[in-house]
Amino acid sequence: VALVGGGPGDPGLLTVRARQLLAGADVVVRDRLAPHMALPLDVEVIEVGKTGGGPSWSQRDIEALMVERALAGNRVVRLKGGDVHVFARGIEEVAACLAAGLPVEVVPGVSSALGVPALAGIPVTAQGVTQSFTVVSAHLPPGDPRSTVDWDALARLGGTLVLLMSTARLAAVCDALLAGGRDPQTPVAVVEDGTLSSERVTIATLATAGQLAHVQPPAVVVVGEVVAARLDHRHPAVPAAPPATSPAASPAASPATSPDA
Amino acid sequence: VALVGGGPGDPGLLTVRARQLLAGADVVVRDRLAPHMALPLDVEVIEVGKTGGGPSWSQRDIEALMVERALAGNRVVRLKGGDVHVFARGIEEVAACLAAGLPVEVVPGVSSALGVPALAGIPVTAQGVTQSFTVVSAHLPPGDPRSTVDWDALARLGGTLVLLMSTARLAAVCDALLAGGRDPQTPVAVVEDGTLSSERVTIATLATAGQLAHVQPPAVVVVGEVVAARLDHRHPAVPAAPPATSPAASPAASPATSPDA
Repeated sequence: VALVGGGPGDPGLLTVRARQLLAGADVVVRDRLAPHMALPLDVEVIEVGKTGGGPSWSQRDIEALMVERALAGNRVVRLKGGDVHVFARGIEEVAACLAAGLPVEVVPGVSSALGVPALAGIPVTAQGVTQSFTVVSAHLPPGDPRSTVDWDALARLGGTLVLLMSTARLAAVCDALLAGGRDPQTPVAVVEDGTLSSERVTIATLATAGQLAHVQPPAVVVVGEVVAARLDHRHPAVPAAPPATSPAASPAASPATSPDA
Repeated sequence: VALVGGGPGDPGLLTVRARQLLAGADVVVRDRLAPHMALPLDVEVIEVGKTGGGPSWSQRDIEALMVERALAGNRVVRLKGGDVHVFARGIEEVAACLAAGLPVEVVPGVSSALGVPALAGIPVTAQGVTQSFTVVSAHLPPGDPRSTVDWDALARLGGTLVLLMSTARLAAVCDALLAGGRDPQTPVAVVEDGTLSSERVTIATLATAGQLAHVQPPAVVVVGEVVAARLDHRHPAVPAAPPATSPAASPAASPATSPDA
């Protein structure tokens, strides 16, 4: 069994090893957000995405499927969106395979938390801007008793904050960060459908991001001064006024904002 | 110009797009920790690693080299270790190219902060264990006036902490986290030469990690309960006593520690 991180969506961001394993697979057990790529016709693809209109697979059922197929002699690739271990329950699938005596290969992938901002022109770190970034799953909102995130500490920590699974809870998250003392003028970028042709980037501040309407999953939200250091390399022909601060840019550079900013 | 994240070291973790660009490059401007791979004989490779025995390149000199070669008509690939924007000064290089009127392609890579723990069997997140992870560059120690990291907030935040560039400052970092109130029994993994055949994994606690001798860069340090959820999929044949807690593991699984743990 191979547990493979498929990257944020663009098939060019699959790793070389991931492509090798997919090309040699008998069965691909695929998440909803895993990238689509051409596979040999005789590869069986089983979609086990946990959301959407189709039937729902439980985590335990997915593990049982992987184990059953591998014990039957199939070369199984478990293909995830992003990385294998970023809010992906990868270690549970490793455990299930090892318990069944099956060898497991783990192939890390480009996490959406990093790859989506990068293609949108936003560096998660920049010299002189931040020495840290934090990636948080906001599938549980601030205040939920099951949540283990200390939003006050997160607000105080500063640096870059990358939010995954936050679309329906963006207002609550912004409120929690403001309540914790983070500057309301902190820039925020909301990247929907990152790395795909349907990508949409919206720039706001911590004070205004909570009121954004029509934010659709999947979206990656970046909170922090790095958003002001954004350079949209994909639309360099449209010059615009430089942002108020851009400490990371080279002195020789003309920072530009993009048409979709 | 293409700015390419080369992943944590294993050439199989290059992306498909990175390999395409490298195969078509005239000049590769390579960091010291970028992966080594076979390139066509007519590709010029310029090593600009900022540490080590050779001559030192300043960030501005690297940018000038990239721009000069690209303006001369060369297809330039700037190859970095890990990701392009994780403590890699990528946005400065994008800025320099855009200022010179050069188109830039950005290709994210597997960050060492995620890929190194994953191959060592450590998930940076695990269901029921943590909802967040923070990646910090410890090139500036706690207490350094240039440091922007609030170590107290980081200790209070909990979750997984991944430290890069921390080897010479590991004791100071552990002390700062302990002073901030993080549990001394928090497990710590130190992964040297991650993803390579020379990889070495050492398991400690926050109370003991500062006394580890002979930790050599490059090393990735993981602090947090996810270390106890480690399953060394590469050495599954060596069963050992299960760790004290392994909340992420499937009930059916037998957690194992590795020979090098």
